[in-house]
Amino acid sequence: MTEEQTSEELLAQLRDLAWSGEWSKSIALLTALHPADLAEIVLDLDVDERRSLLHRLPIDVTAQALDFLDEDGLAAFAEAAETSALLAILNEVPDEIATDVLQQLDPARRREVLAALDHEEQITALLEYPDESAGGIMRSGFVSLNEGLPVERAIETLRRLRPPSDRAYYLYTVDDEQRLCGVVSVRDLIVAAPGTPLTELAERDIHAVSVDLDQEEVAQTLQRYNLLAIPVVDGDGRLVGATTADDVIDVLAEEATEDMYRMVGLDEDERVFSPVRTSVRRRLPWMVVNLVWAFAAAAIVSLFDETLARFTLLAALMPVVAGQGGNAGAQTATIAVRSIAIGDLDVRDVFRATRKEIAVGLANGVVIGIIAGAAVYAWDRNIALSAVLAGALAGSIALATLLGVIIPLGLKWRGIDPALAANIFVTGTTDILSFVLFLGLAALVIERIV
Amino acid sequence: MTEEQTSEELLAQLRDLAWSGEWSKSIALLTALHPADLAEIVLDLDVDERRSLLHRLPIDVTAQALDFLDEDGLAAFAEAAETSALLAILNEVPDEIATDVLQQLDPARRREVLAALDHEEQITALLEYPDESAGGIMRSGFVSLNEGLPVERAIETLRRLRPPSDRAYYLYTVDDEQRLCGVVSVRDLIVAAPGTPLTELAERDIHAVSVDLDQEEVAQTLQRYNLLAIPVVDGDGRLVGATTADDVIDVLAEEATEDMYRMVGLDEDERVFSPVRTSVRRRLPWMVVNLVWAFAAAAIVSLFDETLARFTLLAALMPVVAGQGGNAGAQTATIAVRSIAIGDLDVRDVFRATRKEIAVGLANGVVIGIIAGAAVYAWDRNIALSAVLAGALAGSIALATLLGVIIPLGLKWRGIDPALAANIFVTGTTDILSFVLFLGLAALVIERIV
Repeated sequence: MTEEQTSEELLAQLRDLAWSGEWSKSIALLTALHPADLAEIVLDLDVDERRSLLHRLPIDVTAQALDFLDEDGLAAFAEAAETSALLAILNEVPDEIATDVLQQLDPARRREVLAALDHEEQITALLEYPDESAGGIMRSGFVSLNEGLPVERAIETLRRLRPPSDRAYYLYTVDDEQRLCGVVSVRDLIVAAPGTPLTELAERDIHAVSVDLDQEEVAQTLQRYNLLAIPVVDGDGRLVGATTADDVIDVLAEEATEDMYRMVGLDEDERVFSPVRTSVRRRLPWMVVNLVWAFAAAAIVSLFDETLARFTLLAALMPVVAGQGGNAGAQTATIAVRSIAIGDLDVRDVFRATRKEIAVGLANGVVIGIIAGAAVYAWDRNIALSAVLAGALAGSIALATLLGVIIPLGLKWRGIDPALAANIFVTGTTDILSFVLFLGLAALVIERIV
Repeated sequence: MTEEQTSEELLAQLRDLAWSGEWSKSIALLTALHPADLAEIVLDLDVDERRSLLHRLPIDVTAQALDFLDEDGLAAFAEAAETSALLAILNEVPDEIATDVLQQLDPARRREVLAALDHEEQITALLEYPDESAGGIMRSGFVSLNEGLPVERAIETLRRLRPPSDRAYYLYTVDDEQRLCGVVSVRDLIVAAPGTPLTELAERDIHAVSVDLDQEEVAQTLQRYNLLAIPVVDGDGRLVGATTADDVIDVLAEEATEDMYRMVGLDEDERVFSPVRTSVRRRLPWMVVNLVWAFAAAAIVSLFDETLARFTLLAALMPVVAGQGGNAGAQTATIAVRSIAIGDLDVRDVFRATRKEIAVGLANGVVIGIIAGAAVYAWDRNIALSAVLAGALAGSIALATLLGVIIPLGLKWRGIDPALAANIFVTGTTDILSFVLFLGLAALVIERIV
């Protein structure tokens, strides 16, 4: 896309201007950008460049760009900004964005900045919601109107409040205790006769979420009902905020990345251009865990030392069995993890899901066993070896398929992220089971094989 | 969630009513539901039950529920509905939903139904857009207003049109040739003085997408700029539709599922409760492809027949090398595939990404090699074997890491889905390289090992 090329050219241009010290030109260039593009460009700079630009950019321009930064971006921004500038900017942005920035600071600096903010109290309250709950992702700039108001008064209120246009899509109606009653769209206000009370216009059958609900379930609710926004209520049903579809999109993208990464033992914060040291530090621990499993599997294989010495073709076929089992397990685990994430599979479905996967595993196992057995017979004309391979493959694939659905559901049941299943438990266990099955069967009939 | 339990109880209740033939009660129960819940319940029924209910449900109720069905759901609906009922319902729904339903019909039935529809012409035009393009996912029920209109006339037009409230969030302004000029939010209309022309209110720096843009890029644009809707234009810049964030959420969920599934060789249409036969038919082909690679690897191992016969511990350690390499490759491929999907990595970044991954691969490889070498030395006190294992691990991990980034980028460059990389190319190639490295190094120094 040309947009992308422009962004690289722009970066080069900014660096040239910085070298020649022409800051006013750089600032003019950046201020003309869409805040989302500005946010990206500033992140592409190195720390010193970012610092020099940030304290020259107008406060309102920086404030707008913050809305388009993810956690890493906010952390980089907070690191580059001087405390006085940070305070000025945070007083300018909505409370929930100030909260997100504060979460990126170390505790001492956070206390210092928080104490000096205009909205200290509101932000302290927001900081108490867990990061990944409805309270942690909700916005406060929504509009709530007393349900007794007539349409004309509601329109007057809107004119007076001038809410940001991207937060005023749905208007929530509340009773005198601020409890959520219904929802009215701005379109309904325009279309209705001026004197109509909001109670008559409001849709009362609405989907609200509790402030402590996990962000993934908030996303599932919004997705299920094709909503563009969803209200958030506290334990007493009082309206405390709302979440819009654009934020839910970020949540869903983050959760999908997290699942995909955890399935292969990656830290969800890693990106393709994370620094080498960070990448090594993050990937290495899981590789060590894997190594321990691999050595456990090797120790088991070495028990069959005599069997292997008498017939080395077994060594060549061992990885075939483990690989096929691992593949079957990874396929099932992927389906299970994704189905849990999108709300299609739950712990109470365990028997139905297990029954189905046993059937699939057996069918695939038998077919693959027969194909592989026939191939080995063609290779070595050894019927006992073919039978051992076919049997081990069928067993290994069937077991791996079963583990692929049981382990994610078990983790979910214990409150652990099911995505951790695939790499650590399913593949490791399948490897060991495959070696035991294959070499064990071979040891039983070794006289016929050799 | 209690909602889920209710849905199971409701299903039981519906079945009881169906058995006793009390259709009017079933219909009353279903009609009281939110269309999203109705859609789910009807899908949980079997084909005959669905058919009996569908031809008794009021047409407008069914029409509303269609908006909440995915492709599989629409196919099930189309299968269960008689042609006369289908026609009545499709004349009731927005053109883009009728189009989605028609896409699920076999060509003969599609032609028959299409010819009898009120909006035959418009729907024929929509059918021509590829399913996964901006044109394929856009909606037509948005509001466009001539940019010359004053605010009060625009409000009158809205009152007259009564657009569905979930399609009237942004109002697009167009010139006399229907070319997109800007966007006005309903909030802006309310807040502005009545005589103001729309040209003065409209935001002109807007993000539109071309009708033939891939749906994944449409989603990336909407996500990047935190939009709740994005207008779609044809080659001449004329406004032809708009896509809202709720549809983009479905696109992103679908694309994430597709990537996760393809990485382990699964068909993206498979769900946890797909019928056993379907699941077997879909997973088996990839397992066979995998088997061919596994046999290629086995053939290579069998070349080292003599080396293995002289020292069987090699057989036990072989899977350690292949497993660690495979793991490193899968980690890097996952990062690369996900980064490509969310727009962080592109073909032109190949050198930067490769340089980084070579460094990470070497660092991880050397560390894991040293740990594993030390462990084997403790086990067998054989310095030559330790050195062979350490060297093979370092090489295999470094190569796999490199393949994990090069292969997805190569596929992307050739226009093939990079998600296909992980399972088929990276793991298979890594296995073979690992065996050659480990057994090859061992064969070179076999006299010192034994």
